[in-house]
Amino acid sequence: MYQHNANSLATVFQQADYKLGGHGPRNMDILKQAFEAVDGETDADMYGQGKVIGDFERKMADYLGKPSAVFFPSGTMAQQIALRIWCDRKASKRVAYHPLSHLEIHEQRGLHELHDIEPVLLAEADRLIRLDDVTSMPEDVACLLLELPQREIGGQLPAFEELEAISAYCRARGIKLQLDGARLFEVLPYYQKTAAEICALFDSVYVSFYKGIGGIAGAILAGASDFTEESAVWKRRHGGDLISLYPYIVTADYYFDRRVGRMAHYWSGAEKVARLFNASRHVVTVPEVPVTNMFHVHIALPPEQVEEALVKVAQASGVGLSSYVKPRGDGSCFEISIGDRLDAIPEEKLKLALKQLDEALG
Amino acid sequence: MYQHNANSLATVFQQADYKLGGHGPRNMDILKQAFEAVDGETDADMYGQGKVIGDFERKMADYLGKPSAVFFPSGTMAQQIALRIWCDRKASKRVAYHPLSHLEIHEQRGLHELHDIEPVLLAEADRLIRLDDVTSMPEDVACLLLELPQREIGGQLPAFEELEAISAYCRARGIKLQLDGARLFEVLPYYQKTAAEICALFDSVYVSFYKGIGGIAGAILAGASDFTEESAVWKRRHGGDLISLYPYIVTADYYFDRRVGRMAHYWSGAEKVARLFNASRHVVTVPEVPVTNMFHVHIALPPEQVEEALVKVAQASGVGLSSYVKPRGDGSCFEISIGDRLDAIPEEKLKLALKQLDEALG
Repeated sequence: MYQHNANSLATVFQQADYKLGGHGPRNMDILKQAFEAVDGETDADMYGQGKVIGDFERKMADYLGKPSAVFFPSGTMAQQIALRIWCDRKASKRVAYHPLSHLEIHEQRGLHELHDIEPVLLAEADRLIRLDDVTSMPEDVACLLLELPQREIGGQLPAFEELEAISAYCRARGIKLQLDGARLFEVLPYYQKTAAEICALFDSVYVSFYKGIGGIAGAILAGASDFTEESAVWKRRHGGDLISLYPYIVTADYYFDRRVGRMAHYWSGAEKVARLFNASRHVVTVPEVPVTNMFHVHIALPPEQVEEALVKVAQASGVGLSSYVKPRGDGSCFEISIGDRLDAIPEEKLKLALKQLDEALG
Repeated sequence: MYQHNANSLATVFQQADYKLGGHGPRNMDILKQAFEAVDGETDADMYGQGKVIGDFERKMADYLGKPSAVFFPSGTMAQQIALRIWCDRKASKRVAYHPLSHLEIHEQRGLHELHDIEPVLLAEADRLIRLDDVTSMPEDVACLLLELPQREIGGQLPAFEELEAISAYCRARGIKLQLDGARLFEVLPYYQKTAAEICALFDSVYVSFYKGIGGIAGAILAGASDFTEESAVWKRRHGGDLISLYPYIVTADYYFDRRVGRMAHYWSGAEKVARLFNASRHVVTVPEVPVTNMFHVHIALPPEQVEEALVKVAQASGVGLSSYVKPRGDGSCFEISIGDRLDAIPEEKLKLALKQLDEALG
């Protein structure tokens, strides 16, 4: 794999007056700010019990329109467990998901190594799963996992009608549907649906609190009560039933309240920024018109050259557009996720930066 | 199982002016206090990388006398992974441990369900594992796990010479030795050894930061570098490689520095309190003379009666001796772990409380 000169670009990005993606630096102020108003005498949760965890699980279950919810330290743990439960119920060891699912590329084959479950990979890596991929799945698939939006292809979304058709197909055949909702809050403005309306198409749902929400870590797994009760047993088995999870719960709750209503704003920011990127000759964003707060930037030039250009732009304009560049075929790419930081960049500075990028790419 | 009237005793304990066990209430002040002096601009750890996690792992590796250490969200996760690694290396699915090991009674058979590993249970439940239990183990055991002290029997310890003999036996036969050091810091005064001297007998070691140390949660797994590197891959598979673990690391480090040197003090407190308990006709502590900061209180009376007595004592003396009672055969028991709280109880109050307990038990 191409070894980009991370230090140099990362450092220049770090020092830039303005940064394009995210809510802000991932530092310990995220915790300190959330705990500032917390009464120190508030009881910790104890092994999944107590007011702080119970209230948040109830709140998220209601928000997602599911009977019950369990807080997990990570989505990796929550989703493997969801798939294991559905597999056990069907006495099958097969699930289906996208070739670039988190489970496939970021979890060191945990689903196989711990649960002996094998995936059927649906669709080509560079496109969404479609209804006809689903209808041609083997019949012994216990659960289909759909990620909304599909992060590794820039955060793309199927039409809601296609989701409905996939859901109906799976329901009719006893195939469970798990929602990888790592970025579920981010898709609500595009679909113009509530979270509960989307989750109604799924049997079980995972959401994350450190993407659009901007917490420290942590996840919720929601579904029917017998499902979540079973998931809590597996949480213990995985070593995720920590004596106390409140550092993640308190911050998740704090930033959920502050940011869940801002997703349309982040989305419109992403649309604006994508337009500016697409004005450059060498650049294409995927999707061309974002459907959430995120998109990928594809540049038909080698990473060294793109990195050099980004360094130049950050130094000249004071705007860090990306802290890294990844190779992609013969070209390059990086991901942009719009959050609070965009609001701080003066419009002209941003336009100037993207104009300078176009020039620097030659 | 006997359903004790938890609310009543728990409530009275909660309201008592003085409480016998532990460092203090498990509330969010534990976090707030540790983070008070932390600079909010300190970078979070990211997926196991960064100064906050790297420095603490180095510090603990050095303290334990091992080449390398990895921070885990829980000991449940760390120990299953340690056993899995040793099993994989021997191509065996058998390990050995005590019948009351945490793995056997508190983890919902995670080791079996996730790793397909079966334990050989050594020794009777009410005594320590001895050298002759070890020498009669099946030869295909990949790893023997020893817990120091053995918590579920009151925190008992073998003689150091017996540990040395067990270690030598296992080394000679290619059986790995894993230390369940959930309370390792607490045993150092008794053995008059450094942690490194004890850990030198073991191939891999787990320590916890919310028992004697009094942090929020979290664990360290230490050993040779190839072992800890492999453990980090399994941490990812288990869903324990959270984007950020600093809430647990910062608190673990903070309370480690404040309490690791106080273990002899807690131990002498436990000796004193156990003597007072043993002065009562109905009471026996296990061990009779504590070897760490903990012991169990066995009372040859039914739980209802003991609970009633504890309520009476707490109300009359202002000292909560225990917040709960568990059935044990025909009698009752509860656990005492001495921490900072003991220092706050005036000597005469404590003596009075235990005199009142003796009377209340009839």
